[in-house]
Amino acid sequence: MQIGFIGLGKMGFNMVLNLLRHKHEVIGYDINEALVNEIKQEGAQGTNTLPELCGALQGRKVLWLMIPAGPLIDRVINDLTPLLAEGDVIIDGGNSHYQDSVRRHAALLEKKLHFVDCGTSGGMDGALNGACTMVGGDADVVHSIEQIFQDISVENGYLYTGKAGSGHFTKMVHNGIEYGMMQSIAEGFEVLEKSTFDYDFEAVARLWNNGSVIRSWLMELTENAFSKDARLDSIKGRMHSSGEGKWTLETALDLNVPTPVIALSLLMRYRSLQDDTFTGKVVAALRNEFGGHAVDKK
Amino acid sequence: MQIGFIGLGKMGFNMVLNLLRHKHEVIGYDINEALVNEIKQEGAQGTNTLPELCGALQGRKVLWLMIPAGPLIDRVINDLTPLLAEGDVIIDGGNSHYQDSVRRHAALLEKKLHFVDCGTSGGMDGALNGACTMVGGDADVVHSIEQIFQDISVENGYLYTGKAGSGHFTKMVHNGIEYGMMQSIAEGFEVLEKSTFDYDFEAVARLWNNGSVIRSWLMELTENAFSKDARLDSIKGRMHSSGEGKWTLETALDLNVPTPVIALSLLMRYRSLQDDTFTGKVVAALRNEFGGHAVDKK
Repeated sequence: MQIGFIGLGKMGFNMVLNLLRHKHEVIGYDINEALVNEIKQEGAQGTNTLPELCGALQGRKVLWLMIPAGPLIDRVINDLTPLLAEGDVIIDGGNSHYQDSVRRHAALLEKKLHFVDCGTSGGMDGALNGACTMVGGDADVVHSIEQIFQDISVENGYLYTGKAGSGHFTKMVHNGIEYGMMQSIAEGFEVLEKSTFDYDFEAVARLWNNGSVIRSWLMELTENAFSKDARLDSIKGRMHSSGEGKWTLETALDLNVPTPVIALSLLMRYRSLQDDTFTGKVVAALRNEFGGHAVDKK
Repeated sequence: MQIGFIGLGKMGFNMVLNLLRHKHEVIGYDINEALVNEIKQEGAQGTNTLPELCGALQGRKVLWLMIPAGPLIDRVINDLTPLLAEGDVIIDGGNSHYQDSVRRHAALLEKKLHFVDCGTSGGMDGALNGACTMVGGDADVVHSIEQIFQDISVENGYLYTGKAGSGHFTKMVHNGIEYGMMQSIAEGFEVLEKSTFDYDFEAVARLWNNGSVIRSWLMELTENAFSKDARLDSIKGRMHSSGEGKWTLETALDLNVPTPVIALSLLMRYRSLQDDTFTGKVVAALRNEFGGHAVDKK
């Protein structure tokens, strides 16, 4: 299939390589000309203007967006719309909020254009060698371009999840689960680390990946991390996040679903970004007020 | 190697089959004579008295205990001790508290007997086809019987974790992590279930097992569960526990390690066993007191 691919960053570039390997014809687009040149060397066509991109696509145009979530998606869709014709398809393969995808699907449908939301998991390696794709949108539209998702995914790693927004919703919840699993694994290793025993964390992670109940890809990544830095001495425990855990919690609150573990996994990330807390000062001051308990002075 | 195996329950029986397959000579013991007869039919020797068991073992005796944690372990060790000679080894393969294992190791050492604590993971299938074993004890003792652990474990699924207690400590933390991972997965599926989308949970679990970041054995079990009961309509959401999550939290508290996700995973299990809560009544009554908010009458 012929695909216009917008966004040649770390994920996008690897996905284009994956598509090329599956004999799709890709026209890559990025504002960064160096990336366009790089993808050309890999066997794709390339351009840094959207009119050229759309001009190069024949018949029904299929455009894959792999760019940061948020207003940029709307801007690119707005720029694309006049270049498209009835029936053309825009796929958003990034981490957009599912409500944005529902809205974009409806807005494009009014212009007789199709929007497909594709949650993509598996990291850069997955993008290159086989991802996990969770795809929402109108059934007939998705089915007509299903070969793309099947080709870039591992076996059984593609699912049509249902109506517009359901793909990004699935990916959002996936990431919420991921937050909880990561925090669980990490808390366990801190208990090992603070114990009176002398553990080889890499060896424990490897052990747990072989025959245990908690064997998992995240535990394999844990093993990799400890293999490079046995006690993670070279990094800080500051846990950044990119929004999907927060969205999962916000969605759970809207749906009245108690998700304490996903919630606390997110809040512990926020806590990790604070060197000291105002909460801590207030509690320390109160203990001092009522009990004369010592406070740690600044 | 010749092994006296005490406890032919679901885990123990499968482990004996596993040992037999690896050409170990096993004398099985259980108070339940039917199980003794069953294991004899599988090629083991069998008895339901400890003196007969110990009498059948030649040279340095190696005894594997696979019985419920707690006082029963002490009782069986007390019954065994007079039947053993200097240098004999008792392995506790169950889910004992690591502090009990430290104590038992020290008490047996005074009698010149050896104690090895082996945390075993992988469920019944692992017991039969390859488990994950986390083994603590004196290095020379463990190394002298290492072949047993290597044989019943999957490749790389055995680790000597260090001094006495460290094996059961590792298993305890493993189970704490398991609680958190299970709760995370479950919360995610409840968000899907309460959403406006119409998900096939088995299909989503299968999808997430193929190429996603959260692929894991627990997600495979999730897929299995949904394959048998698409929306789990036939069971209640009551989450029992067998102690190791609680021990992980108690240990974390003793070590001053913040483990909010493991803690809440445990507390949500307790909550699931309550049909109503006194906490809920107190909060409802208070809302009524200060704001006149309606309460749900019994």
